[in-house]
Amino acid sequence: MSIRFQILGRPETDNALLVQVDGGQGTDRLLFDCGDRCMDELSYGEIQAIDHLFFSHFHMDHVSGFDNFFRCVFNRTNKPNRIWGPPGAAAILQHRFQGFLWNWVDHMSSQWRVTEIHPDLLRHWRYETSEAYATAHAEPATAYDVACWDGGHYVVEAMAMDHRVPSMAYVVREKPRYNVDPANMAALGLTPGSWLKAVKEGMQQGELEINGQRHDLAVLRQQLLTAVPGESIAYLTDFLLDEQAIARLVPFLSDVRWMVCESQYRHVDAELAHRNFHMTTTWTAKLAAAAQVDELVLFHISNRYPKTEWPAMLAEARAIFPRTRFPEHWDIPG
Amino acid sequence: MSIRFQILGRPETDNALLVQVDGGQGTDRLLFDCGDRCMDELSYGEIQAIDHLFFSHFHMDHVSGFDNFFRCVFNRTNKPNRIWGPPGAAAILQHRFQGFLWNWVDHMSSQWRVTEIHPDLLRHWRYETSEAYATAHAEPATAYDVACWDGGHYVVEAMAMDHRVPSMAYVVREKPRYNVDPANMAALGLTPGSWLKAVKEGMQQGELEINGQRHDLAVLRQQLLTAVPGESIAYLTDFLLDEQAIARLVPFLSDVRWMVCESQYRHVDAELAHRNFHMTTTWTAKLAAAAQVDELVLFHISNRYPKTEWPAMLAEARAIFPRTRFPEHWDIPG
Repeated sequence: MSIRFQILGRPETDNALLVQVDGGQGTDRLLFDCGDRCMDELSYGEIQAIDHLFFSHFHMDHVSGFDNFFRCVFNRTNKPNRIWGPPGAAAILQHRFQGFLWNWVDHMSSQWRVTEIHPDLLRHWRYETSEAYATAHAEPATAYDVACWDGGHYVVEAMAMDHRVPSMAYVVREKPRYNVDPANMAALGLTPGSWLKAVKEGMQQGELEINGQRHDLAVLRQQLLTAVPGESIAYLTDFLLDEQAIARLVPFLSDVRWMVCESQYRHVDAELAHRNFHMTTTWTAKLAAAAQVDELVLFHISNRYPKTEWPAMLAEARAIFPRTRFPEHWDIPG
Repeated sequence: MSIRFQILGRPETDNALLVQVDGGQGTDRLLFDCGDRCMDELSYGEIQAIDHLFFSHFHMDHVSGFDNFFRCVFNRTNKPNRIWGPPGAAAILQHRFQGFLWNWVDHMSSQWRVTEIHPDLLRHWRYETSEAYATAHAEPATAYDVACWDGGHYVVEAMAMDHRVPSMAYVVREKPRYNVDPANMAALGLTPGSWLKAVKEGMQQGELEINGQRHDLAVLRQQLLTAVPGESIAYLTDFLLDEQAIARLVPFLSDVRWMVCESQYRHVDAELAHRNFHMTTTWTAKLAAAAQVDELVLFHISNRYPKTEWPAMLAEARAIFPRTRFPEHWDIPG
């Protein structure tokens, strides 16, 4: 059980984030935003394997690589095709689906499902390749409680931030894993067996027979299991980061291990950052410190800053939050 | 006065054609199709300078680079923004315009005009950036006689071919230039002066006074001028090339200097080419021979053929039409 991630794109180009959540039964691949050339670092097979595409919002630098993604997967039928975004996502994505000439698609059976994340509601639409995506089939809305997506061994949580338009902040959290404590098992006079599966998976309720003796499952779990917390990663980009935003984000980011966060501006340009509803190195680091994350990874740097200034940007953030870095493959000294 | 051109993209990727028509007063830049990465070989300034974008059709490999183009120019106000294509172009392009989130555009004044080329009619629509392209403003249709676009010193002609859907074939033709024959001028007892402009430009009718003597302009032109034919280039891609198509294309291609033409398939795959409404090396060369063009430039080669087979593809075409080549920068021996 673990999370791996990869920042796509370079500091002077569009960026995106690919997260792989490895569960015991398989790996889910989640893409966050899809700017120009962000698919360049992935093979055709890696793009084909992406399970979910989550958009923060639909400004050009976050969606201009969509054609590259869609061209690989539009007729994919071996897994559900799911895209997520803020309110308004469905209309924009339907325009993108319809931005090609679709003839000869009658025989195609792929479907696309777009979910708009509203404050307490998830609104879903389905689009059929065989219909050339001409119809938005509304599906029943569902409640948005804690997570917008439950992937079994992990969840994705979302919160709308203010970029003059809604820009979604996302957190991917693995669910805790439960291990059996061998000392406790010995103390109860039990020996390992196939019964452990029922205890660890926590699906069954009631009683369980072990070596002829009946045990209450809930009690057994309490006696035997220790929880191992899962890993977690946040994707934060393109929004105003003021005191109020920090206050909203700190609980949202609780126990987050990696915080991948934009840092468009140097702090000397704070006024400009504020005017454009973006962040600075210093503000980003303040958030990381307030949220007590393990590590801050800076990305989505404005191309107004020459490469020579990037180490100084990193230093600005590290002055506030030392465990800060750029993506490794950017090769920035610091 | 001259035409320069550049095939964009590589043999194993999407392709497009950039044509520069140099007139005495300036250069017009015409882009034909806009596949993925086709903008990579152009600088930001070169993309900004494109005057017209002509689409053959809107399959993925001809339109997937549109975001790269549009991102550079969407708010361009220093020249008209014009896109052309077959019937259906307006709806697809409006979807593409609307495939982004447009906030904060009230103050933007750029406009886009899309023209659909119907058999004897040009249908025009205007889209406003300030409206986030939400409304298709229909403008009065105009007749399509000989050319779909008259650029002053050149024209663009279009003809719909059959790719199961309409795929437009295009020809760019410079208008003939008229030079004054010095011997004829001397024979008439005339000496060079500012009056020559009125004769050469052919805008004025009636009489002209030269050194106190009145001359009929039409007669003067006949006596003094010799016509120098302009250059011309054809862009042909993605359609069925059978006897009927060749019969339609030969007059359309009369006096064409360069014929840039797809050659998706080797001739051994002719059945597949026919089924997919594409061409083969041999068919393409037959068309070049029948139309008596000066040079055939092959492009848009299927990536089913490894690089090692490209010289053989060239040889197949040259067996029929010797003056055939691939784009120079593809570096294919042959």
